[in-house]
Amino acid sequence: MARVYNFSPGPAMLPVEVMEQARDEMLDWRGTGMSVMEMSHRGKQFMSIAEQAEADFRELLAISDDYKVLFLQGGAASQFAMAPMNLLRGKKEADYLCTGHWSKKAIDEGRKFCKVNVVASTEKTGFKTIPPQRDWNLNPQAAYFHYTPNETIAGVEFHWIPKMGEIPLVVDMSSTLLSRPVDVSCFGAIYAGAQKNIGCAGLTIVIVRRDLMGQTLEGTPTMFNYQVQADNDSMYNTPPTYAWYISGLVFSWLKKKGGLAAMAQINRTKADTLYNFIDSSSFYHNPVEPASRSWMNIPFTLSDPSLDERFLEQAKKSSLTNLKGHRSVGGMRASIYNAMPQKGIDTLVEFMKEFERTQA
Amino acid sequence: MARVYNFSPGPAMLPVEVMEQARDEMLDWRGTGMSVMEMSHRGKQFMSIAEQAEADFRELLAISDDYKVLFLQGGAASQFAMAPMNLLRGKKEADYLCTGHWSKKAIDEGRKFCKVNVVASTEKTGFKTIPPQRDWNLNPQAAYFHYTPNETIAGVEFHWIPKMGEIPLVVDMSSTLLSRPVDVSCFGAIYAGAQKNIGCAGLTIVIVRRDLMGQTLEGTPTMFNYQVQADNDSMYNTPPTYAWYISGLVFSWLKKKGGLAAMAQINRTKADTLYNFIDSSSFYHNPVEPASRSWMNIPFTLSDPSLDERFLEQAKKSSLTNLKGHRSVGGMRASIYNAMPQKGIDTLVEFMKEFERTQA
Repeated sequence: MARVYNFSPGPAMLPVEVMEQARDEMLDWRGTGMSVMEMSHRGKQFMSIAEQAEADFRELLAISDDYKVLFLQGGAASQFAMAPMNLLRGKKEADYLCTGHWSKKAIDEGRKFCKVNVVASTEKTGFKTIPPQRDWNLNPQAAYFHYTPNETIAGVEFHWIPKMGEIPLVVDMSSTLLSRPVDVSCFGAIYAGAQKNIGCAGLTIVIVRRDLMGQTLEGTPTMFNYQVQADNDSMYNTPPTYAWYISGLVFSWLKKKGGLAAMAQINRTKADTLYNFIDSSSFYHNPVEPASRSWMNIPFTLSDPSLDERFLEQAKKSSLTNLKGHRSVGGMRASIYNAMPQKGIDTLVEFMKEFERTQA
Repeated sequence: MARVYNFSPGPAMLPVEVMEQARDEMLDWRGTGMSVMEMSHRGKQFMSIAEQAEADFRELLAISDDYKVLFLQGGAASQFAMAPMNLLRGKKEADYLCTGHWSKKAIDEGRKFCKVNVVASTEKTGFKTIPPQRDWNLNPQAAYFHYTPNETIAGVEFHWIPKMGEIPLVVDMSSTLLSRPVDVSCFGAIYAGAQKNIGCAGLTIVIVRRDLMGQTLEGTPTMFNYQVQADNDSMYNTPPTYAWYISGLVFSWLKKKGGLAAMAQINRTKADTLYNFIDSSSFYHNPVEPASRSWMNIPFTLSDPSLDERFLEQAKKSSLTNLKGHRSVGGMRASIYNAMPQKGIDTLVEFMKEFERTQA
């Protein structure tokens, strides 16, 4: 079968060039007679892979030396605990904003470790917007302010960065990191699971301001201690070496594509193409307030939900897969991370037009 | 370059057949038009991969339904914390045996969560033996008894299972699980990082008796809660899908090789070949008491340590790599997990003979 356009919210599409290189190097990485999977993480071959990946990642995001980059395991769900365990720094309270499913998960986990103040929540109105900062009930004693710049289920996204003065911003960028430039210096800590824009599942990247580390909550498992991971360059134990390597191939691919400014243009055009079509149609509908719409995850409904199954079946026949929306929203969702080409969007829009026409 | 015999202690060699299959399926898994890396973990394709892997793993080890099998992240180092966090069950004390580097790591981490009683330690005599159970100072109040059946650095291994009555055995089998049959019903919990005999780094398997779960220590991160992971079939969040898939390919390979009884014969013969040669030589030396010698990790020294560097250089020219011993032991170490063929051992022994002859 030919390759499909896979709109899965994550794990998600990877660049074909990355997988071709991984395939070609599978049994013998650059004449070593070994797969990357077989390399000791402390050997010079893997160390070179790891260091190059970090260097490219730092270059892509222009990360200053004030920040440590960690290559960890456990997904963003582990960071929901690691963030408070490491970043409360003797304080007892933290501010959280609730704009969707993943914000809520972070809040629930945060409550295990501190007094969580939810500064605002859009849950009652169905997570269709980002509330303005002037309406937030901020706590000046908060150790940090946590939010989720993009919510993959509701498809709502920040297109601005909150201003919190001295209170560090801690963010779950799982679904947006590397999709466009971001001013890392605005943040105390950024974390992201890899399975959207970074690489394959099993790797979690944390960018953390060095001065915020080192005051870990008592009872924190050693593996959850940012300072220990930093002191060991993410090799306190065996890291997820193959996932680290794949992320390095993605970073190299991103540099060849022109870096994150180029990706921002590509991603913005992709999203605009789909939103413009949806907005021009009375058959399809996106529920999110235009200023808060996600570039990465675009939910849409059909005017007649009884056609949902047929839509999905016919889409699959056109090599457009994993378009089913999350059960909490219903309808469809197109997740269109870096590896989804404009061609995939164009094919989807053509299919949607044709589907609408044949149902009319 | 041709494939090498890689004696790395882990990450380590993988079966060539496994990597060939992974390579061939990289861009298109069974006509889906997707890589396994790109699949949603909740989609039916990945679910079938995950379920088949678990079924094969259970079959290989004849695991009864009294046990849950978890496919997690974080390595054995995370289990050093997860074991006490989940298995103290309201008790405050646990027994640990210290037979090497990894036992010590587990003990240090265990001390964060309970009163650790070290029942015996062979540290003062350099970790060269397994002390007999009659000499252990056991605590009848212990919530569990923890030990490390194989120590990869010292090369000491249990060839028997302690008898503890009602006190559950909790074991770090990272370096031996799947290398031979094991009676799982003797254990309360078995955990293992994948990067020796199971698959690639980034996956950790836990086999845990169902009745021991559910009394997790307060303050345990959700991701560290065995019960939560069990209730969600290891998909509380996105699991390390590609590493899970690779382990499934390894399980399938093991079944084709004849299962674990066949692997035990192969592994025993491999170890005997190398030990018999070392013992027949006055040029090479293994420091471990014969009854406690590891089948998996065989450290050996040269009678003249000034030849170490030359040995390693010449070995590498003969496609024998990663033989350098751990700095705490010195000399050499041959790690010979399931994927190391008998031919690799024979080649090593021939090389060692020739090296000795040319130095004499």
